Amino acid sequence: MSDVHAARRERLRDRCAAAGTAAALVSHPANVRYLTGCAPSGAVLLVGPGEQDALVRPRPAAGDLDGGRPPEDVRTVVLPTSDGDPVVAAAGLVRDQRGGTLAVEEHHLTVARHRAIGSVAPGLVLSDLGGAVEQLRVVKDEQEIASLRIAAELADQALGELLESILVGRTERHLALELERRLVDHGAEGPAFPTCVGTGPHSGAARHAPTDRRVEEGDFLTVRLGACYRGYRCEVGRTFVVGASPADWQIELYELVFAAQRAGREALIPGVACRDVDHAARRVLAAAGYGEAVGEVTGHGVGLEIDEDPRLSPAAMGKLNACVPVTVEPGVHLPGRGGVRIDDTLVVRPPTDGGPELLTITTKELLAL
Amino acid sequence: MSDVHAARRERLRDRCAAAGTAAALVSHPANVRYLTGCAPSGAVLLVGPGEQDALVRPRPAAGDLDGGRPPEDVRTVVLPTSDGDPVVAAAGLVRDQRGGTLAVEEHHLTVARHRAIGSVAPGLVLSDLGGAVEQLRVVKDEQEIASLRIAAELADQALGELLESILVGRTERHLALELERRLVDHGAEGPAFPTCVGTGPHSGAARHAPTDRRVEEGDFLTVRLGACYRGYRCEVGRTFVVGASPADWQIELYELVFAAQRAGREALIPGVACRDVDHAARRVLAAAGYGEAVGEVTGHGVGLEIDEDPRLSPAAMGKLNACVPVTVEPGVHLPGRGGVRIDDTLVVRPPTDGGPELLTITTKELLAL
Repeated sequence: MSDVHAARRERLRDRCAAAGTAAALVSHPANVRYLTGCAPSGAVLLVGPGEQDALVRPRPAAGDLDGGRPPEDVRTVVLPTSDGDPVVAAAGLVRDQRGGTLAVEEHHLTVARHRAIGSVAPGLVLSDLGGAVEQLRVVKDEQEIASLRIAAELADQALGELLESILVGRTERHLALELERRLVDHGAEGPAFPTCVGTGPHSGAARHAPTDRRVEEGDFLTVRLGACYRGYRCEVGRTFVVGASPADWQIELYELVFAAQRAGREALIPGVACRDVDHAARRVLAAAGYGEAVGEVTGHGVGLEIDEDPRLSPAAMGKLNACVPVTVEPGVHLPGRGGVRIDDTLVVRPPTDGGPELLTITTKELLAL
Repeated sequence: MSDVHAARRERLRDRCAAAGTAAALVSHPANVRYLTGCAPSGAVLLVGPGEQDALVRPRPAAGDLDGGRPPEDVRTVVLPTSDGDPVVAAAGLVRDQRGGTLAVEEHHLTVARHRAIGSVAPGLVLSDLGGAVEQLRVVKDEQEIASLRIAAELADQALGELLESILVGRTERHLALELERRLVDHGAEGPAFPTCVGTGPHSGAARHAPTDRRVEEGDFLTVRLGACYRGYRCEVGRTFVVGASPADWQIELYELVFAAQRAGREALIPGVACRDVDHAARRVLAAAGYGEAVGEVTGHGVGLEIDEDPRLSPAAMGKLNACVPVTVEPGVHLPGRGGVRIDDTLVVRPPTDGGPELLTITTKELLAL
């Protein structure tokens, strides 16, 4: 694994060299983890210049067991106190080497910390690393995809077990907690994001914090959950009907969203424009008059963060490459009535490899529970 | 309630006026919530200049039900897309009013967002609001304390119920999840922070992510949890012995940490220096030779965040006023063996009101479970 991380840091070093910067200071925790395999609380990573990359971290609190060891080819610098700012200390290291230039993550670093670098190393020329590491993270290697695959399996298992239990009369909050407990039971590090359970008028919502509303006969029930496994996060979402048989409007709406989601999934071919995937799903819903109810995004990348590049939206730039995992999650929410949302995590694969790889395999038939 | 929030914003306006700034842009979510009673995802608050304060928020996603309504005397500005940055939009509002100066939260705002303000409103002079709102938040009103009291009650209940169940053989992870489920069962919005369960060698740690280690006979078991109620977060931590009877070293260590924690609690008198409260607890442990094992902080403020001003540490500046809720949580962790940590949330009260008010009332006797 250490070789993998060294190779990733090498790619970052190349980018810095191309941009004329001697060193990069990575502070966004998911980026630190990507480049070292660990992300101790508060740690930042200095890539280059010269000899060894350095992980700079605050002194852990007494008995602080939040671990994670960097690879052996990364030097660890532990600050003498837990108060010190590793960003400032890392800048000090560069200053001492008279490197002169340092690229920082301006989209993550606060103004106050940026200023603090300026005062400790006034001669240092700071530039913006931008989303360079995030860009490296977009295309996953097979080990990363293997972790996502397991995360998806765990989420499918938890969801499958819930469907076998009695749902009527239980609250959204309880169902969400039950799902999270099952995820951990099966070996997840935790939920990939706060589990979303919406019933009746809350169903189909893009984001919804579970409430004390109880599941009732005739409700649509939308469940969205994900597992975190080895740091990798996936997402699965399904909508069910509670009780004997769905109403006509429920069947119609479900079939429509299902068709939109399938269209999005089928568009996942290497080289496709992100906006075209979005359009494939969106146009199905728009044609049925739900254009306004769709929202701005119908999918997004997943990995060390649950919502990362690329975005699938009408304004998205760029194309999808092979080995990019994304969600496809169009939905319709009708205020006061509820709605349907269907959400899968897939990996873009060439047709010669069988096309998009579906990681979340829970059935998408309309189940009446 | 709306009056309360208006009065808080008025105090902030006074501070800005004193600092010569026309307007303040508050972006830290806990601060937005403190000043308006709500914190929709991504919303920022513009206080002054002129007429009405404004809450600027991105367009919610379709069916985004994460609610929260601002008070009626705060204008809501919803951005046309979910992509736009409310910070930039708010700066635009000030520019249009030719206010000239705007104080921003440099400890929260990223460099990239700060730069974006500069490009949309190049004439605007930006200054640093610093921790002005955090400072307003330190002393709580009785309504805030009432929320903390309920949060503490919920945490005590969840902990009490766990103690009645069988613990041997269960993993740290399961116990943590069980506690979080019980918190929510009793009416908490959720855990105040990730529940910490450490058994055997993990006991007594300041921070510890629950593992798959199972509780064994003879273990120390340290549990730290908190509830969130109406946004307010409390903390309670206890250490138990599992099995028939504690070993001598366990009893000794427990009594020592208990004495240290009591000394800290008894020091909570209005006007006391923060460092003196820390010292009161710390010296007990140092005198017994555990000075190095204590860590840098023995307590901290709680409120809308679980870890807020003030800090109780040797380097802390400032004094504690009445109506400031803090934790007192000294502990000793011996690598490889475990240890003891005892953690309460209390409110500083004058002796004439009966002295410090203990919110977390779970017994601190050494229980053998």
